Amino acid sequence: MKLSLLIQEIGRKKSYLCTGLDTDIEKLPSHLPQTPEGILQFNKAIIQATEPYSVAYKINTAFYESLGKFGWVILEETFKAIPDHCLKIADAKRGDIGNTADHYAKAFFKSLKADAVTVSPYMGCDTLLPFLAYKEHFTIVLGLTSNTGAQDFEMLNTSEGPVYRKVMEKVAKMAGPEQLMFVAGATKAEQLQDIRNWLPHHFLLVPGVGAQGGDLEAISRAALNAQGGLLVNASRSIIYASQGDDFAQKAGEEACRIQQKMESLLKAIYQYTA
Amino acid sequence: MKLSLLIQEIGRKKSYLCTGLDTDIEKLPSHLPQTPEGILQFNKAIIQATEPYSVAYKINTAFYESLGKFGWVILEETFKAIPDHCLKIADAKRGDIGNTADHYAKAFFKSLKADAVTVSPYMGCDTLLPFLAYKEHFTIVLGLTSNTGAQDFEMLNTSEGPVYRKVMEKVAKMAGPEQLMFVAGATKAEQLQDIRNWLPHHFLLVPGVGAQGGDLEAISRAALNAQGGLLVNASRSIIYASQGDDFAQKAGEEACRIQQKMESLLKAIYQYTA
Repeated sequence: MKLSLLIQEIGRKKSYLCTGLDTDIEKLPSHLPQTPEGILQFNKAIIQATEPYSVAYKINTAFYESLGKFGWVILEETFKAIPDHCLKIADAKRGDIGNTADHYAKAFFKSLKADAVTVSPYMGCDTLLPFLAYKEHFTIVLGLTSNTGAQDFEMLNTSEGPVYRKVMEKVAKMAGPEQLMFVAGATKAEQLQDIRNWLPHHFLLVPGVGAQGGDLEAISRAALNAQGGLLVNASRSIIYASQGDDFAQKAGEEACRIQQKMESLLKAIYQYTA
Repeated sequence: MKLSLLIQEIGRKKSYLCTGLDTDIEKLPSHLPQTPEGILQFNKAIIQATEPYSVAYKINTAFYESLGKFGWVILEETFKAIPDHCLKIADAKRGDIGNTADHYAKAFFKSLKADAVTVSPYMGCDTLLPFLAYKEHFTIVLGLTSNTGAQDFEMLNTSEGPVYRKVMEKVAKMAGPEQLMFVAGATKAEQLQDIRNWLPHHFLLVPGVGAQGGDLEAISRAALNAQGGLLVNASRSIIYASQGDDFAQKAGEEACRIQQKMESLLKAIYQYTA
């Protein structure tokens, strides 16, 4: 998916919502089979109900890998079920040396046909090159995350600022917004504002609205730019909005509620009318 | 697998060799089918030929994920093919927040029945806890890696030393050698000696002997301790020792050659007779 299409989709839906399909087999509504097939039914219904309000879907690969070989089948089918005008993100947080990273890039971009994959930068810039070699895809690099452990190493101080800033600034020189995005944690709006100041153009993927408690308005005021520049992810608050037969309808309603708030924020902050 | 059994195995085989099954479908000997089934045949033959000399096997999950759903089946079968007295390492380099890490731990320790999994520490100590909750398994945390990109972030200087040292020292406080190991890059023996000085007890998994060019004697003198304390991985130099019908025999010979060198080093350095 090209960046121009994503920007178009944000303008069309007046939304920068990414719905996270962190589907846990133990949390399926009771009328669905507690099997990989049940997960697939669930995901398809969630995608159909939320698609008018979501510009992106983020599939957390861990929830599928824990199901073994059946999980990988469901992972493939879930990617297929997402319409092509939405950004399909494999949230895989991979990171390894060159010839291994080649295989990960192939797994996500070619085999699963994801548009984007999340990648860990710990091992350095050379480990990102095999992903960036796919010019029509996005590499989404971990910068700052929203968990408490972010303090341990991401926020370690170097003589030139915290580690996450060094990571994001150095990696940002490797590619433009048409190929590269960053994960930027949502719990601290001032940090997000700071990141936006020294990283004006790249899209930021912000996890943590909803179950993780981020504040959508503060995040949006800090990180939106004229192209949108922001994807805000909500997973549990949408996909588990109801545990009953009406789970898809309630998921759609929650996604709609977030989209409405995003529409008003786009207008308020940028008079966004694209 | 318990640490005491690994130490016993090192003593019995007089080896600290880890054979890396980074099996690339495009590099299979021409008489094998270039299919996932061909990879499985190849792996089984390599395991059988190298098992007298290897105390551990490291399976690089990327090479299997790139094959899609068939890859995951072969991954499961390859883990099953490794004898239980060898340490079975999933080289997956995962790392994510708590509830996601739970699923990764389940994927590798329960579904694939790996004894150990490699994990990236970027997101902090809380992301390691779900792995460490499996008390009978090993969590192998990335410290210093051997690729050139290690300079970018792992070696960034903080006021208290390079990032990788902060990572290894902080993580080492979370668990003892019976649960926790570290990946420590092989290209610089002085750094390995330095690591061993401030991390005397934990096992170090050192990639890079063979195709990546590390020097086995220098590595061993720097990192061996009285329990062994060291696993040295060789992948390509063993598994691609021959491209012909004799690939397994040649792999066994190469593993034997490395084991012989390890045996003499164990004697020379520690008069190791366990």
